[in-house]
Amino acid sequence: MAAPVTVYGPAISPAVARVAACLLEKDVAFQLEAVDMSKGEHKSPSFLKLQPFGQVPAFKDHLTTVFESRAICRYICDQYSDRGNQTLLGRKEDGAVGRAAIEQWVESEGQAFNPPSLAIAFQLTFAPLMGMATDMAVVEQNEAKLAKVLDVYERRLAESQYFAGDEFTLADLVHMPNTDLLVSKTGKAGLITERKNLSRWWDEVSARPSWKKVVELQSVPRPSKA
Amino acid sequence: MAAPVTVYGPAISPAVARVAACLLEKDVAFQLEAVDMSKGEHKSPSFLKLQPFGQVPAFKDHLTTVFESRAICRYICDQYSDRGNQTLLGRKEDGAVGRAAIEQWVESEGQAFNPPSLAIAFQLTFAPLMGMATDMAVVEQNEAKLAKVLDVYERRLAESQYFAGDEFTLADLVHMPNTDLLVSKTGKAGLITERKNLSRWWDEVSARPSWKKVVELQSVPRPSKA
Repeated sequence: MAAPVTVYGPAISPAVARVAACLLEKDVAFQLEAVDMSKGEHKSPSFLKLQPFGQVPAFKDHLTTVFESRAICRYICDQYSDRGNQTLLGRKEDGAVGRAAIEQWVESEGQAFNPPSLAIAFQLTFAPLMGMATDMAVVEQNEAKLAKVLDVYERRLAESQYFAGDEFTLADLVHMPNTDLLVSKTGKAGLITERKNLSRWWDEVSARPSWKKVVELQSVPRPSKA
Repeated sequence: MAAPVTVYGPAISPAVARVAACLLEKDVAFQLEAVDMSKGEHKSPSFLKLQPFGQVPAFKDHLTTVFESRAICRYICDQYSDRGNQTLLGRKEDGAVGRAAIEQWVESEGQAFNPPSLAIAFQLTFAPLMGMATDMAVVEQNEAKLAKVLDVYERRLAESQYFAGDEFTLADLVHMPNTDLLVSKTGKAGLITERKNLSRWWDEVSARPSWKKVVELQSVPRPSKA
Protein backbone atom coordinates (compact mmCIF):
# COMPACT_ATOMS: atom_id res chain seq x y z
CA MET A 1 0.00 0.00 0.00
CA ALA A 2 1.29 3.44 -0.85
CA ALA A 3 2.36 5.67 2.04
CA PRO A 4 -0.05 8.54 2.72
CA VAL A 5 2.81 11.04 2.46
CA THR A 6 3.86 12.11 -1.03
CA VAL A 7 6.66 14.49 -1.97
CA TYR A 8 6.42 15.79 -5.53
CA GLY A 9 9.68 16.63 -7.28
CA PRO A 10 13.16 15.30 -8.06
CA ALA A 11 15.45 14.40 -5.11
CA ILE A 12 18.26 16.35 -6.79
CA SER A 13 16.38 19.58 -6.01
CA PRO A 14 17.80 20.88 -2.72
CA ALA A 15 14.32 21.83 -1.47
CA VAL A 16 13.03 18.31 -2.18
CA ALA A 17 16.13 16.84 -0.50
CA ARG A 18 15.47 19.02 2.58
CA VAL A 19 11.97 17.55 2.99
CA ALA A 20 13.17 13.98 2.28
CA ALA A 21 15.92 14.33 4.92
CA CYS A 22 13.35 15.48 7.46
CA LEU A 23 10.96 12.59 6.71
CA LEU A 24 13.85 10.11 6.99
CA GLU A 25 14.97 11.58 10.35
CA LYS A 26 11.37 11.33 11.56
CA ASP A 27 10.99 7.77 10.26
CA VAL A 28 7.85 8.74 8.33
CA ALA A 29 7.31 6.59 5.21
CA PHE A 30 6.82 8.53 1.98
CA GLN A 31 6.90 8.26 -1.77
CA LEU A 32 8.66 10.58 -4.17
CA GLU A 33 6.53 11.39 -7.17
CA ALA A 34 8.13 12.55 -10.39
CA VAL A 35 7.26 15.99 -11.77
CA ASP A 36 8.31 16.39 -15.40
CA MET A 37 9.55 19.95 -15.29
CA SER A 38 10.86 19.76 -18.86
CA LYS A 39 7.21 19.40 -19.93
CA GLY A 40 6.08 22.20 -17.61
CA GLU A 41 4.17 19.82 -15.36
CA HIS A 42 4.97 22.08 -12.37
CA LYS A 43 2.94 24.85 -14.02
CA SER A 44 -0.12 22.66 -14.73
CA PRO A 45 -3.44 23.54 -13.04
CA SER A 46 -3.40 20.33 -10.97
CA PHE A 47 0.13 21.01 -9.68
CA LEU A 48 -0.71 24.66 -8.94
CA LYS A 49 -3.47 23.42 -6.64
CA LEU A 50 -0.76 21.75 -4.55
CA GLN A 51 1.86 24.50 -4.92
CA PRO A 52 0.55 27.91 -6.03
CA PHE A 53 3.99 29.18 -7.12
CA GLY A 54 4.61 26.21 -9.44
CA GLN A 55 7.77 25.13 -7.64
CA VAL A 56 9.02 21.84 -6.20
CA PRO A 57 8.49 20.28 -3.79
CA ALA A 58 4.77 19.99 -3.40
CA PHE A 59 3.71 17.89 -0.44
CA LYS A 60 0.63 15.92 0.53
CA ASP A 61 -0.19 13.99 3.71
CA HIS A 62 -3.64 12.41 3.42
CA LEU A 63 -5.78 15.47 2.60
CA THR A 64 -3.31 18.07 3.90
CA THR A 65 -1.15 19.94 1.40
CA VAL A 66 1.76 22.16 2.45
CA PHE A 67 4.26 24.15 0.35
CA GLU A 68 7.69 25.72 1.00
CA SER A 69 10.29 23.17 2.13
CA ARG A 70 10.96 24.71 5.55
CA ALA A 71 7.24 24.98 6.33
CA ILE A 72 6.84 21.34 5.27
CA CYS A 73 9.69 20.33 7.62
CA ARG A 74 8.05 22.15 10.53
CA TYR A 75 4.75 20.42 9.74
CA ILE A 76 6.43 16.99 9.73
CA CYS A 77 8.05 17.70 13.12
CA ASP A 78 4.80 18.99 14.66
CA GLN A 79 2.47 16.38 13.15
CA TYR A 80 4.72 13.39 13.84
CA SER A 81 6.03 14.61 17.18
CA ASP A 82 6.14 11.05 18.58
CA ARG A 83 8.00 9.47 15.65
CA GLY A 84 11.70 9.01 14.87
CA ASN A 85 13.94 11.91 15.92
CA GLN A 86 11.78 13.75 18.46
CA THR A 87 14.06 16.71 19.15
CA LEU A 88 14.38 18.29 15.69
CA LEU A 89 12.37 21.28 16.98
CA GLY A 90 13.62 20.96 20.56
CA ARG A 91 12.73 19.00 23.66
CA LYS A 92 9.15 19.42 24.80
CA GLU A 93 10.33 20.50 28.27
CA ASP A 94 12.36 23.37 26.76
CA GLY A 95 9.19 24.89 25.27
CA ALA A 96 9.17 28.14 23.30
CA VAL A 97 12.71 29.09 24.33
CA GLY A 98 14.15 25.79 23.08
CA ARG A 99 12.26 26.02 19.79
CA ALA A 100 13.37 29.63 19.25
CA ALA A 101 17.03 28.64 19.68
CA ILE A 102 16.49 26.37 16.65
CA GLU A 103 14.13 28.58 14.64
CA GLN A 104 16.57 31.50 14.54
CA TRP A 105 19.12 29.36 12.66
CA VAL A 106 16.42 27.87 10.40
CA GLU A 107 15.56 31.45 9.47
CA SER A 108 19.19 32.46 8.95
CA GLU A 109 19.49 29.51 6.57
CA GLY A 110 16.51 30.73 4.55
CA GLN A 111 17.46 34.40 4.65
CA ALA A 112 21.27 34.54 4.64
CA PHE A 113 22.72 31.15 3.62
CA ASN A 114 20.31 29.89 0.97
CA PRO A 115 20.31 32.80 -1.50
CA PRO A 116 24.09 32.93 -2.17
CA SER A 117 24.72 29.17 -1.85
CA LEU A 118 21.85 28.36 -4.19
CA ALA A 119 23.00 30.99 -6.68
CA ILE A 120 26.48 29.40 -6.72
CA ALA A 121 25.04 25.89 -7.11
CA PHE A 122 22.74 27.07 -9.86
CA GLN A 123 25.61 28.57 -11.86
CA LEU A 124 28.12 25.75 -11.33
CA THR A 125 25.89 22.67 -11.13
CA PHE A 126 22.45 23.16 -12.62
CA ALA A 127 23.17 25.63 -15.45
CA PRO A 128 25.66 23.24 -17.15
CA LEU A 129 23.15 20.37 -16.77
CA MET A 130 20.55 22.54 -18.51
CA GLY A 131 22.95 23.52 -21.29
CA MET A 132 23.22 27.10 -20.00
CA ALA A 133 26.41 29.15 -19.68
CA THR A 134 27.84 29.75 -16.22
CA ASP A 135 28.03 33.42 -15.21
CA MET A 136 31.28 33.62 -13.24
CA ALA A 137 30.54 37.20 -12.12
CA VAL A 138 27.43 35.92 -10.35
CA VAL A 139 29.48 33.12 -8.77
CA GLU A 140 32.10 35.55 -7.45
CA GLN A 141 29.58 38.04 -6.13
CA ASN A 142 27.70 35.32 -4.24
CA GLU A 143 30.87 33.69 -2.99
CA ALA A 144 31.77 36.97 -1.28
CA LYS A 145 28.30 37.20 0.28
CA LEU A 146 28.37 33.57 1.37
CA ALA A 147 31.85 33.87 2.93
CA LYS A 148 30.53 36.47 5.39
CA VAL A 149 27.69 34.16 6.44
CA LEU A 150 30.06 31.20 6.77
CA ASP A 151 32.36 33.27 9.01
CA VAL A 152 29.41 33.74 11.40
CA TYR A 153 28.66 30.01 11.20
CA GLU A 154 32.29 29.14 11.86
CA ARG A 155 32.26 31.21 15.07
CA ARG A 156 28.95 29.65 16.11
CA LEU A 157 30.23 26.10 15.56
CA ALA A 158 33.28 26.91 17.67
CA GLU A 159 30.88 27.46 20.60
CA SER A 160 28.62 24.44 20.15
CA GLN A 161 28.62 21.09 18.39
CA TYR A 162 25.53 21.87 16.32
CA PHE A 163 23.85 25.14 15.30
CA ALA A 164 21.36 25.19 18.17
CA GLY A 165 23.46 23.47 20.85
CA ASP A 166 24.46 19.91 21.74
CA GLU A 167 21.90 18.16 19.59
CA PHE A 168 21.28 17.74 15.88
CA THR A 169 18.12 19.72 15.04
CA LEU A 170 16.19 21.19 12.14
CA ALA A 171 18.67 24.08 12.27
CA ASP A 172 21.36 21.70 11.00
CA LEU A 173 19.13 19.73 8.67
CA VAL A 174 17.91 22.69 6.60
CA HIS A 175 21.53 23.65 5.79
CA MET A 176 22.48 20.21 4.45
CA PRO A 177 21.25 20.14 0.83
CA ASN A 178 23.06 23.33 -0.22
CA THR A 179 26.16 22.44 1.82
CA ASP A 180 26.31 19.10 0.00
CA LEU A 181 26.04 20.88 -3.34
CA LEU A 182 28.92 23.19 -2.37
CA VAL A 183 31.10 20.33 -1.10
CA SER A 184 30.31 17.69 -3.74
CA LYS A 185 29.13 19.34 -6.94
CA THR A 186 30.48 22.86 -7.41
CA GLY A 187 34.25 22.66 -6.98
CA LYS A 188 33.80 25.11 -4.09
CA ALA A 189 34.27 22.59 -1.26
CA GLY A 190 36.95 24.83 0.28
CA LEU A 191 34.27 27.27 1.44
CA ILE A 192 33.31 24.56 3.95
CA THR A 193 36.40 22.37 4.35
CA GLU A 194 38.80 25.27 4.93
CA ARG A 195 36.75 26.37 7.93
CA LYS A 196 37.70 24.00 10.75
CA ASN A 197 34.45 23.92 12.70
CA LEU A 198 32.15 23.92 9.69
CA SER A 199 34.20 21.08 8.24
CA ARG A 200 33.91 19.08 11.47
CA TRP A 201 30.17 19.79 11.55
CA TRP A 202 29.70 18.67 7.94
CA ASP A 203 31.61 15.42 8.54
CA GLU A 204 29.30 14.66 11.45
CA VAL A 205 25.94 15.57 9.96
CA SER A 206 26.59 14.08 6.53
CA ALA A 207 27.43 10.72 8.16
CA ARG A 208 23.89 10.39 9.50
CA PRO A 209 21.94 7.45 7.99
CA SER A 210 19.14 9.82 6.95
CA TRP A 211 21.49 11.89 4.81
CA LYS A 212 23.13 8.82 3.25
CA LYS A 213 19.67 7.71 2.19
CA VAL A 214 19.00 11.14 0.62
CA VAL A 215 22.23 10.86 -1.39
CA GLU A 216 21.10 7.39 -2.49
CA LEU A 217 17.74 8.79 -3.64
CA GLN A 218 19.57 11.49 -5.59
CA SER A 219 21.65 8.90 -7.43
CA VAL A 220 18.55 7.16 -8.79
CA PRO A 221 17.86 8.53 -12.28
CA ARG A 222 14.13 8.76 -11.68
CA PRO A 223 12.34 9.35 -8.38
CA SER A 224 11.20 6.05 -6.93
CA LYS A 225 9.50 4.71 -3.83
CA ALA A 226 11.37 5.45 -0.61
CA MET B 1 9.63 49.56 35.66
CA ALA B 2 11.05 48.65 32.26
CA ALA B 3 9.33 45.82 30.38
CA PRO B 4 11.39 42.61 30.25
CA VAL B 5 11.08 42.54 26.44
CA THR B 6 13.46 44.74 24.46
CA VAL B 7 13.62 45.17 20.69
CA TYR B 8 16.86 46.74 19.48
CA GLY B 9 16.68 48.82 16.32
CA PRO B 10 14.74 51.63 14.62
CA ALA B 11 11.00 51.14 14.01
CA ILE B 12 11.49 52.34 10.44
CA SER B 13 13.35 49.07 9.69
CA PRO B 14 10.75 46.66 8.25
CA ALA B 15 12.18 43.75 10.28
CA VAL B 16 11.90 45.78 13.49
CA ALA B 17 8.35 46.83 12.51
CA ARG B 18 7.44 43.15 11.96
CA VAL B 19 8.45 42.26 15.52
CA ALA B 20 6.77 45.36 16.98
CA ALA B 21 3.51 44.53 15.16
CA CYS B 22 3.60 41.02 16.59
CA LEU B 23 4.21 42.23 20.15
CA LEU B 24 1.36 44.73 19.82
CA GLU B 25 -1.04 42.06 18.50
CA LYS B 26 -0.02 39.84 21.42
CA ASP B 27 -0.40 42.69 23.92
CA VAL B 28 3.12 42.09 25.24
CA ALA B 29 4.73 45.25 26.65
CA PHE B 30 8.15 46.09 25.21
CA GLN B 31 10.66 48.83 24.79
CA LEU B 32 12.42 49.87 21.61
CA GLU B 33 16.09 50.51 22.18
CA ALA B 34 18.02 52.70 19.76
CA VAL B 35 20.97 51.24 17.85
CA ASP B 36 23.16 53.92 16.31
CA MET B 37 23.92 52.26 13.01
CA SER B 38 25.68 55.38 11.70
CA LYS B 39 28.30 54.77 14.41
CA GLY B 40 28.47 51.03 13.63
CA GLU B 41 26.88 50.10 16.95
CA HIS B 42 25.26 47.05 15.26
CA LYS B 43 28.75 45.66 14.59
CA SER B 44 29.99 46.12 18.17
CA PRO B 45 30.98 43.04 20.21
CA SER B 46 28.11 43.55 22.66
CA PHE B 47 25.53 43.78 19.84
CA LEU B 48 27.01 40.75 18.06
CA LYS B 49 26.36 38.73 21.21
CA LEU B 50 22.67 39.45 20.71
CA GLN B 51 22.64 39.20 16.91
CA PRO B 52 25.62 37.38 15.34
CA PHE B 53 25.05 38.85 11.85
CA GLY B 54 25.11 42.44 13.11
CA GLN B 55 21.61 43.21 11.84
CA VAL B 56 18.50 44.72 13.39
CA PRO B 57 16.39 43.76 15.18
CA ALA B 58 18.04 42.07 18.10
CA PHE B 59 15.59 40.86 20.71
CA LYS B 60 15.75 40.03 24.39
CA ASP B 61 13.11 38.67 26.77
CA HIS B 62 14.52 38.32 30.29
CA LEU B 63 17.60 36.15 29.62
CA THR B 64 16.43 34.79 26.25
CA THR B 65 17.83 36.31 23.08
CA VAL B 66 16.43 35.52 19.61
CA PHE B 67 17.41 36.84 16.17
CA GLU B 68 15.73 36.94 12.73
CA SER B 69 12.38 38.79 12.76
CA ARG B 70 10.23 35.82 11.71
CA ALA B 71 11.84 33.55 14.33
CA ILE B 72 11.25 36.25 16.94
CA CYS B 73 7.57 36.47 15.92
CA ARG B 74 7.17 32.70 16.26
CA TYR B 75 8.80 32.85 19.71
CA ILE B 76 6.43 35.62 20.84
CA CYS B 77 3.39 33.58 19.68
CA ASP B 78 4.64 30.37 21.34
CA GLN B 79 5.89 31.96 24.58
CA TYR B 80 2.88 34.24 25.11
CA SER B 81 0.28 31.78 23.81
CA ASP B 82 -2.30 32.98 26.35
CA ARG B 83 -1.90 36.72 25.68
CA GLY B 84 -3.58 39.10 23.23
CA ASN B 85 -4.33 37.62 19.80
CA GLN B 86 -4.18 33.88 20.46
CA THR B 87 -4.64 32.63 16.92
CA LEU B 88 -1.68 34.19 15.10
CA LEU B 89 -0.21 30.69 14.69
CA GLY B 90 -3.60 28.97 14.52
CA ARG B 91 -6.17 27.64 16.95
CA LYS B 92 -4.85 25.06 19.40
CA GLU B 93 -7.51 22.57 18.32
CA ASP B 94 -6.32 22.77 14.68
CA GLY B 95 -2.86 21.51 15.69
CA ALA B 96 -0.05 20.92 13.21
CA VAL B 97 -2.34 21.18 10.17
CA GLY B 98 -3.63 24.60 11.21
CA ARG B 99 -0.14 25.90 11.94
CA ALA B 100 1.18 24.59 8.60
CA ALA B 101 -1.56 26.46 6.71
CA ILE B 102 -0.06 29.64 8.22
CA GLU B 103 3.64 28.69 8.12
CA GLN B 104 3.60 28.08 4.35
CA TRP B 105 2.63 31.71 3.72
CA VAL B 106 5.09 32.99 6.35
CA GLU B 107 7.78 31.13 4.39
CA SER B 108 6.58 32.44 1.02
CA GLU B 109 6.87 35.94 2.48
CA GLY B 110 10.48 35.31 3.49
CA GLN B 111 11.45 33.47 0.32
CA ALA B 112 9.41 35.03 -2.49
CA PHE B 113 7.90 38.36 -1.37
CA ASN B 114 10.58 39.88 0.83
CA PRO B 115 13.60 39.85 -1.51
CA PRO B 116 12.03 41.84 -4.40
CA SER B 117 9.87 44.11 -2.24
CA LEU B 118 12.78 44.97 0.05
CA ALA B 119 15.05 45.61 -2.94
CA ILE B 120 12.49 48.07 -4.36
CA ALA B 121 12.06 49.79 -0.99
CA PHE B 122 15.81 49.99 -0.53
CA GLN B 123 16.30 51.70 -3.89
CA LEU B 124 13.32 54.06 -3.70
CA THR B 125 13.09 54.81 0.03
CA PHE B 126 16.27 54.05 1.95
CA ALA B 127 18.95 54.84 -0.66
CA PRO B 128 17.77 58.48 -1.06
CA LEU B 129 17.67 58.84 2.76
CA MET B 130 21.27 57.63 2.88
CA GLY B 131 22.36 59.98 0.10
CA MET B 132 22.82 57.09 -2.36
CA ALA B 133 21.71 57.03 -5.99
CA THR B 134 18.69 54.92 -6.93
CA ASP B 135 19.43 52.14 -9.42
CA MET B 136 16.32 52.05 -11.60
CA ALA B 137 17.45 48.86 -13.36
CA VAL B 138 17.35 47.08 -9.99
CA VAL B 139 13.89 48.53 -9.34
CA GLU B 140 12.53 47.32 -12.68
CA GLN B 141 14.05 43.85 -12.38
CA ASN B 142 12.57 43.40 -8.91
CA GLU B 143 9.23 44.86 -9.89
CA ALA B 144 8.91 42.13 -12.53
CA LYS B 145 9.78 39.44 -9.97
CA LEU B 146 7.42 40.89 -7.39
CA ALA B 147 4.53 41.12 -9.86
CA LYS B 148 4.59 37.34 -10.34
CA VAL B 149 4.42 36.79 -6.58
CA LEU B 150 1.61 39.33 -6.22
CA ASP B 151 -0.37 37.56 -8.94
CA VAL B 152 -0.26 34.39 -6.82
CA TYR B 153 -1.30 36.40 -3.76
CA GLU B 154 -4.16 38.03 -5.68
CA ARG B 155 -5.55 34.60 -6.62
CA ARG B 156 -5.13 33.40 -3.03
CA LEU B 157 -6.95 36.43 -1.60
CA ALA B 158 -9.81 35.82 -4.04
CA GLU B 159 -10.34 32.47 -2.27
CA SER B 160 -10.07 33.60 1.34
CA GLN B 161 -10.25 36.78 3.39
CA TYR B 162 -6.72 36.40 4.76
CA PHE B 163 -3.68 34.44 3.60
CA ALA B 164 -4.34 31.39 5.75
CA GLY B 165 -8.16 31.49 5.79
CA ASP B 166 -10.86 33.41 7.63
CA GLU B 167 -8.65 34.82 10.38
CA PHE B 168 -5.84 37.34 10.56
CA THR B 169 -2.66 35.38 11.36
CA LEU B 170 1.12 35.67 11.33
CA ALA B 171 0.90 34.92 7.58
CA ASP B 172 -0.70 38.34 7.10
CA LEU B 173 1.36 40.15 9.72
CA VAL B 174 4.78 39.28 8.27
CA HIS B 175 3.78 40.82 4.91
CA MET B 176 2.75 44.18 6.39
CA PRO B 177 6.00 46.16 6.80
CA ASN B 178 7.11 45.76 3.18
CA THR B 179 3.57 46.23 1.85
CA ASP B 180 3.36 49.49 3.75
CA LEU B 181 6.67 50.61 2.26
CA LEU B 182 5.37 49.82 -1.24
CA VAL B 183 2.04 51.59 -0.66
CA SER B 184 3.22 54.60 1.33
CA LYS B 185 6.87 55.31 0.59
CA THR B 186 7.98 54.13 -2.86
CA GLY B 187 5.52 55.57 -5.35
CA LYS B 188 4.74 51.97 -6.29
CA ALA B 189 1.36 51.72 -4.51
CA GLY B 190 -0.25 50.49 -7.74
CA LEU B 191 1.43 47.11 -7.31
CA ILE B 192 -0.99 46.58 -4.41
CA THR B 193 -3.91 48.93 -5.06
CA GLU B 194 -4.42 47.85 -8.68
CA ARG B 195 -4.96 44.27 -7.55
CA LYS B 196 -8.53 44.16 -6.22
CA ASN B 197 -8.17 41.48 -3.55
CA LEU B 198 -4.74 42.56 -2.33
CA SER B 199 -6.05 46.10 -2.07
CA ARG B 200 -9.07 44.94 -0.05
CA TRP B 201 -6.75 42.85 2.18
CA TRP B 202 -4.38 45.81 2.76
CA ASP B 203 -7.26 48.15 3.68
CA GLU B 204 -8.39 45.62 6.29
CA VAL B 205 -5.08 44.65 7.86
CA SER B 206 -3.62 48.16 7.92
CA ALA B 207 -6.69 49.41 9.84
CA ARG B 208 -5.85 47.16 12.80
CA PRO B 209 -4.95 49.10 15.97
CA SER B 210 -1.64 47.20 16.23
CA TRP B 211 -0.52 48.45 12.81
CA LYS B 212 -1.61 52.02 13.52
CA LYS B 213 0.58 51.92 16.60
CA VAL B 214 3.54 50.68 14.51
CA VAL B 215 3.08 53.60 12.11
CA GLU B 216 3.01 55.91 15.12
CA LEU B 217 6.28 54.42 16.42
CA GLN B 218 7.82 54.95 12.99
CA SER B 219 6.87 58.62 12.98
CA VAL B 220 8.81 59.27 16.19
CA PRO B 221 12.26 60.57 15.25
CA ARG B 222 14.01 58.42 17.85
CA PRO B 223 12.92 55.05 19.21
CA SER B 224 11.17 55.55 22.51
CA LYS B 225 9.30 53.53 25.11
CA ALA B 226 6.26 51.69 23.75
